[in-house]
Amino acid sequence: MNGRMKPAIVLLSGGLDSATTAAVASRDGFEVHALSFRYGQRHAHELTAASRTAEALRVASHRILDLDLRAFGGSALTADIDVPKDRPANELSHGIPITYVPARNTIFLSMALALAEVVGAHDIFVGVNAIDYSGYPDCRPEFIVAFEALAKLATRAGVEGSPLKIHTPLIFLSKAEIVALGLGLGVDFSLTSSCYDPAADGRACGRCDSCQLRLRGFQSNNMRDPIAYAA
Amino acid sequence: MNGRMKPAIVLLSGGLDSATTAAVASRDGFEVHALSFRYGQRHAHELTAASRTAEALRVASHRILDLDLRAFGGSALTADIDVPKDRPANELSHGIPITYVPARNTIFLSMALALAEVVGAHDIFVGVNAIDYSGYPDCRPEFIVAFEALAKLATRAGVEGSPLKIHTPLIFLSKAEIVALGLGLGVDFSLTSSCYDPAADGRACGRCDSCQLRLRGFQSNNMRDPIAYAA
Repeated sequence: MNGRMKPAIVLLSGGLDSATTAAVASRDGFEVHALSFRYGQRHAHELTAASRTAEALRVASHRILDLDLRAFGGSALTADIDVPKDRPANELSHGIPITYVPARNTIFLSMALALAEVVGAHDIFVGVNAIDYSGYPDCRPEFIVAFEALAKLATRAGVEGSPLKIHTPLIFLSKAEIVALGLGLGVDFSLTSSCYDPAADGRACGRCDSCQLRLRGFQSNNMRDPIAYAA
Repeated sequence: MNGRMKPAIVLLSGGLDSATTAAVASRDGFEVHALSFRYGQRHAHELTAASRTAEALRVASHRILDLDLRAFGGSALTADIDVPKDRPANELSHGIPITYVPARNTIFLSMALALAEVVGAHDIFVGVNAIDYSGYPDCRPEFIVAFEALAKLATRAGVEGSPLKIHTPLIFLSKAEIVALGLGLGVDFSLTSSCYDPAADGRACGRCDSCQLRLRGFQSNNMRDPIAYAA
């Protein structure tokens, strides 16, 4: 809101990673414009979490964009496929998981690019992570580099000589390091939601890949995850 | 619908260019899966035109995706800015026009990429044109090349060694050549809609940049544009 702060678009999902990413953007002096998507998730808990997190971080703006990817199908997060549970740790980081949404980060970054152009931002923050979730092709550093190259050619700002920078402060951090970073920046993780298959009351299952990674991240910091679990 | 035909995603706007592009995809033996967007256009005529065109071309499927870009603002085509009229011919191809939608082709191609992954297509057709509409940064060949590079890194198919090809059969054609190509392929241009600011009954204004280019394309072929004009 300070006229001298540089605006940045931050993709905010409501999860632990994007909350920490938004806190990093704030710490680095950016005016945060948060962007979330209602993309046919089977539950609305993560959007509630995104709104609460945006409020707690006192962002300059928070937009929730409707984006109905259900017509496409093809993922456990948008279609009626069972979310895998209790997978052993050594399987969590290998292969492309069933929860992969086709081209999701390409779509989300494209939307962030459009908003950046409207807001006059030359910076986008996204909490992708190549360590604990290397199964997603669109979370890798080379994907981000390719998107920056595209953005330079795709927009008025890029054409006029102000290329866009995509910040991925978590890309090489373990989940334990992300939790530690967020705690250090005062992120209220009790407001976040990471579960792929929460109970009707919003409590996390504790058993899907995302819950397992999250719980282990807190354990490694000798901390208790402040959110409620069903099990 | 033939089991041996390769599926392709075709971005179909309802205009003259995308109708011709879809006809080219059919001619080249692809099973056409058309994709249109309801993105806060000020008029629904172009979606009606897209549906009629899809039907006339007997496409394998036609999806209309809701994508409300109005929350972003920033363009004459989605916000309440006046569409420029009666611009002299030498201004039509210079600079980035006010009708530019931020990151539009990046967003549309991202969606096409998602659908390609779901449908199992390795081909996307888009009717971008670098000659008569060079003002749009995301219509240039180098943008398309960058998007192909991104797609290779962004998707399961790309990672697994089946890169995606983006076909731009119109990219170096003049509007007159596009009209000639479409007529040669039997495209029914009376079903298409190109106007940025049509009357309530759907008739084209005849004066916006898009109408002027279209009319000139038919004139150069010594043809009458079969659609109705208000003026």
